[in-house]
Amino acid sequence: MFKVDLNCDMGESYGIYKLGQDEEMMKYITSANIACGFHAGDPQTMRQTIKLALKHNVAIGAHPSLPDKQGFGRRRMDIDAEEIYGLVLYQLGALQAFAKAEGANIAHVKPHGALYHMANENRLIAEAIAEAAFRIDEDIFLVGQSNSELVKAGARIGLRTVNEVFADRNYEKDGLLTPRLHEQALIVHSRYSCERMVRLVKENKVEARTGEMIDMRADTICIHGDSPDALEHAKELIVALQEAGIQITAPQFAF
Amino acid sequence: MFKVDLNCDMGESYGIYKLGQDEEMMKYITSANIACGFHAGDPQTMRQTIKLALKHNVAIGAHPSLPDKQGFGRRRMDIDAEEIYGLVLYQLGALQAFAKAEGANIAHVKPHGALYHMANENRLIAEAIAEAAFRIDEDIFLVGQSNSELVKAGARIGLRTVNEVFADRNYEKDGLLTPRLHEQALIVHSRYSCERMVRLVKENKVEARTGEMIDMRADTICIHGDSPDALEHAKELIVALQEAGIQITAPQFAF
Amino acid sequence: MFKVDLNCDMGESYGIYKLGQDEEMMKYITSANIACGFHAGDPQTMRQTIKLALKHNVAIGAHPSLPDKQGFGRRRMDIDAEEIYGLVLYQLGALQAFAKAEGANIAHVKPHGALYHMANENRLIAEAIAEAAFRIDEDIFLVGQSNSELVKAGARIGLRTVNEVFADRNYEKDGLLTPRLHEQALIVHSRYSCERMVRLVKENKVEARTGEMIDMRADTICIHGDSPDALEHAKELIVALQEAGIQITAPQFAF
Amino acid sequence: MFKVDLNCDMGESYGIYKLGQDEEMMKYITSANIACGFHAGDPQTMRQTIKLALKHNVAIGAHPSLPDKQGFGRRRMDIDAEEIYGLVLYQLGALQAFAKAEGANIAHVKPHGALYHMANENRLIAEAIAEAAFRIDEDIFLVGQSNSELVKAGARIGLRTVNEVFADRNYEKDGLLTPRLHEQALIVHSRYSCERMVRLVKENKVEARTGEMIDMRADTICIHGDSPDALEHAKELIVALQEAGIQITAPQFAF
Repeated sequence: MFKVDLNCDMGESYGIYKLGQDEEMMKYITSANIACGFHAGDPQTMRQTIKLALKHNVAIGAHPSLPDKQGFGRRRMDIDAEEIYGLVLYQLGALQAFAKAEGANIAHVKPHGALYHMANENRLIAEAIAEAAFRIDEDIFLVGQSNSELVKAGARIGLRTVNEVFADRNYEKDGLLTPRLHEQALIVHSRYSCERMVRLVKENKVEARTGEMIDMRADTICIHGDSPDALEHAKELIVALQEAGIQITAPQFAF
Repeated sequence: MFKVDLNCDMGESYGIYKLGQDEEMMKYITSANIACGFHAGDPQTMRQTIKLALKHNVAIGAHPSLPDKQGFGRRRMDIDAEEIYGLVLYQLGALQAFAKAEGANIAHVKPHGALYHMANENRLIAEAIAEAAFRIDEDIFLVGQSNSELVKAGARIGLRTVNEVFADRNYEKDGLLTPRLHEQALIVHSRYSCERMVRLVKENKVEARTGEMIDMRADTICIHGDSPDALEHAKELIVALQEAGIQITAPQFAF
Repeated sequence: MFKVDLNCDMGESYGIYKLGQDEEMMKYITSANIACGFHAGDPQTMRQTIKLALKHNVAIGAHPSLPDKQGFGRRRMDIDAEEIYGLVLYQLGALQAFAKAEGANIAHVKPHGALYHMANENRLIAEAIAEAAFRIDEDIFLVGQSNSELVKAGARIGLRTVNEVFADRNYEKDGLLTPRLHEQALIVHSRYSCERMVRLVKENKVEARTGEMIDMRADTICIHGDSPDALEHAKELIVALQEAGIQITAPQFAF
Repeated sequence: MFKVDLNCDMGESYGIYKLGQDEEMMKYITSANIACGFHAGDPQTMRQTIKLALKHNVAIGAHPSLPDKQGFGRRRMDIDAEEIYGLVLYQLGALQAFAKAEGANIAHVKPHGALYHMANENRLIAEAIAEAAFRIDEDIFLVGQSNSELVKAGARIGLRTVNEVFADRNYEKDGLLTPRLHEQALIVHSRYSCERMVRLVKENKVEARTGEMIDMRADTICIHGDSPDALEHAKELIVALQEAGIQITAPQFAF
C-alpha cells in the first residue's frame, strides 16, 4: 500500500494581518506546519490553528524560522549552529505548550523559509535543528527536503525523518530544486504535475528539468495555501493520488 | 520545622548586554525566576541560566513578562486576559523546552514586572496566568504576592501556590506594597529587615508602614540581584533565617 | 468659502502583509496619515505610500504610534511623557527622511490608535507630542480630536492645529466620542451621516447621541479605508460636501 | 598641516542595558557614530548621546545597522539593496530628528557591523547606502573603510567621503582587514600601533601583516570604547598624533 503525507504551512497570520486560507485548506491536508511567532504567527494564531488542526484530524507540526517578521523568514542570516539550536528549541517549546494546552502533541518539525534552505544544505545547521527536535521529543518527525542534509542529520541522531517533495517545483538532475529565479523553476499545476507526484510516491522517481529520470524519495508533498487557486490544486492532486491507489495520511500513521 | 524559599530574577541578559550577577547569586538562592525572552533573556541566556541553576540545585522557574524589552517589562499594557493567557503560555513553553533539553523541568511560574502587578490586582488576568500554568503542568507552583488575586486564582484552579514577600519593601496596613514612589517604600537592608523576614516566616506577621501588625503568609522571599551589595544582603538574610531555625528550601521540598 | 480636509490612515501594510486599499482611497482624500513602522508600515511601504500620495497631490502626514505591531498600536501602554516625546520624534524623523528623499515634506502629524486617545485626554502626553512635532518643523500641522488636549497643547506651543471629527462615530454631549463598546457608538454611513458632516463644517455643530446640539469645530474629517464599502462611503461624503458648497482641501491650502 | 578625525561608536545602550563609557570617551574623540535603534540605542539614548556630543563639540554621526538587536547588528543578512536603502534612510531620518530637535545636524554616516562590511565589499549595497545618505543631506560625509566600495560609491554620487582606518587591526597586503579569526588580526595597542597611525596620516602608508608597505588613505581613525583600557589607548594615541604635528579634528573642519 502506497502512502504519502500532504503538508501545508499554516498559522501565518499576525495580529491584525491575515494570511492564507487556513480554514479551507485544513480540510484537505494531513500535516500542518504551524508558524511559531518568529516569521509569522502569534500566540492567538498559534492557539487557533492548533484547534483547527485538531478539528480536522490534521497532524500538528512546528514551523520554526529565523527571527525576521519583516522579511517573513525568507532572508538568510549568518547565524551559527549553536544559536540556531537555541532559536529552534525556543519555538518548538512555545508551540508545544499550545498543543499540550489543547490536549495534543507536536507530531513533526519543518523549518521555514531561509532556515529550511540553510538546513538542507549545511550539515552543522541541520544537526543543530535535529538536536533541538530530538531533545524536545525523541518521537518527533523531522521534515526536510528529500535526501537533504537535514533528513540525514535527523537519521543520524535517531529521529524518524520525512522526505519532502514539492508539487509545484522543478528539480535539477542532482536532485536540488531548480532555483526560483530560473524561468523553469515552477511547474504549473496540471495533469502533468499530478502525474509527477504519483510517480514520485510509487516509483521514487522524478523527471529533472533537463529530462533525466532521477531517484527521489517522497514521504510528504508540500502544497502552498497562499495562491488564489491553491484549493483547486489541492483537490486535483488528492484525486490523482487516490485514483492511483495512494493513501494520504500523516507520517505517524504511515510508518 | 519552619521553611522558606529564596527566589531571585535570573537570566536577564540579552544578546551582547549583560545584567545581574547570576553566577554568584545562584549560590545563595533556592528558586530562580528565569526570563523567557519577552522583557529580557534570549535562547542562549535561557539555556545557560538553566544549566547554572541545575549546577547549583536551584529550582528552575519561568519569569514571563509583557512583550516589552525596551521597557524591561515594567510598563503596564492594556492587554486582555485572553492575550495574557497566550503570551504566558508561549513563554512557559519556550522555557520548558530548554529545561527539558537539559533533562530538567520547570518548577514554578512567577510573572515579571508590570505583569506581576497586574496579575496580583486583576482577577481576570490572574486567572489567565493560572490557567496557562495549569495547562502546561498541573504540578507547577504559581508564585504571586502574598494573598493576591494571583495566588487565589492559582488555588481555585488547583495549583499549589507560593505566597511571596519582599525583603526590601514596606507594606501598607491592607497588605499591599507601599508604592515605589512613596519615600518609605524601601526598607534598607539591615538587622531590622532580616528580623522582619524571620517573623514573617515563623509568625506570618509583619509590621505595616504605619505601625500595625498585619497577617501575611511568607512561602518565598524575593531578593534582588542587581544592586551592588545584593550578595551581601543575601548572605546576611540567610544567616538570620538559619539562626532562627528556618530551613531555606525550594517549594517542591517544602510542601 | 467653507473648507474641510479629508484624512485617512495609509501605509499600514507590513512586509508580506497587506492592509487597506491605499491605491484606490488615495484618489479621494486630501491628507494621508502614513504609518511610521511602530504599529504598521516598514521602510518599503513608507516610501511607496509617499510616492502614491505625491502622485495624487495628497498631503503627507506622519501617523506615529506606540511600539506595538502585534496589537496594531491599539493597546494603551503606561509610557511617560518623556518617552512619548522620544518615540514620536523618532517616527517623525524616519518618515520625514522618506518624504525628503522624494523631494517632499511632512505636512501634518496625527497620532495613531491608543496614542491618539492618550494624547487627546492627557495633557502631559499631548504636550510631549506637540513638542516633538514643533521641534521637527514649526510649520507642521498637529491633528487631534476636536477640542482635545492635543490640539490645545499644539496651540500653546505655537503649532497650527487641525480639529478632527469622525464621519462614522457618535458623540456624547460633552463632545467626547461615544465609547466603542456602546451600542450606539457607530453611525452607519447614510444620508444622515453625510448631513452631520456638512453641518459640522458649516455650522460647527453636531447632534450628540442624547439629542443635544453641541459645538464642535471640524477642520478635517477622518474616513476609514479598511471596510469593504469604504470607497463608496468616501465618494458619497465627497458628493454631499461638494453639493453643500464645501471645498475639500488639505490644511495647508485651507488656513 | 596634517589632520585626522577620531571616531568612536556611541549611544549603544538600550533600555535598562548599559554599554560603553560614552561620558568619558566623548572627551577624546572628534566624531561620534550614534546607534539609531536597529542594533542598539533607543530614543532616550539617542537624545542623550546627541546632547553629550554637543556638549563636547563632537561631530554627530548616524550609525545605521541591519535590524538585529539580539545579534548587535553583527550577523550578515541577505537583504537586497533596495531594502538596505530603506532601512538606512529610516535610521538616518530618526537620528536627524533628534539632532534637529537639539538645534544640531548630522555630520556623517557610518554603517555598523555586518552592514559596514557588506557595504565595503558590495557595490550595490554601497550605492544604496550612499544614495540614502545623499538624499537626506547632500553635504553629509560618508565614512567607509579606506578605499572600499562604500567610499567609491559615495564619491560617485557626489558625497564627500571619509576613509577610515583602524588603530587596533592588522591589514592584508591587498588593503583588506585581516579577518578577525586570524591570530594576527588584532594589533595590541602600543607604541607600534600609535606609530602606524601617525605614518598612515602623514604618509598614507601602512605595513601589511606580511611585511609589505601598502598605500592607504586615513581620514579618520576608529577607536573602540568598550574595552576596559579604551580610554588609556585613546589618550596615548592622541598624544602620539599631536606630537607628530597632526591636528585632530572632525571632517567638516578638515576638508
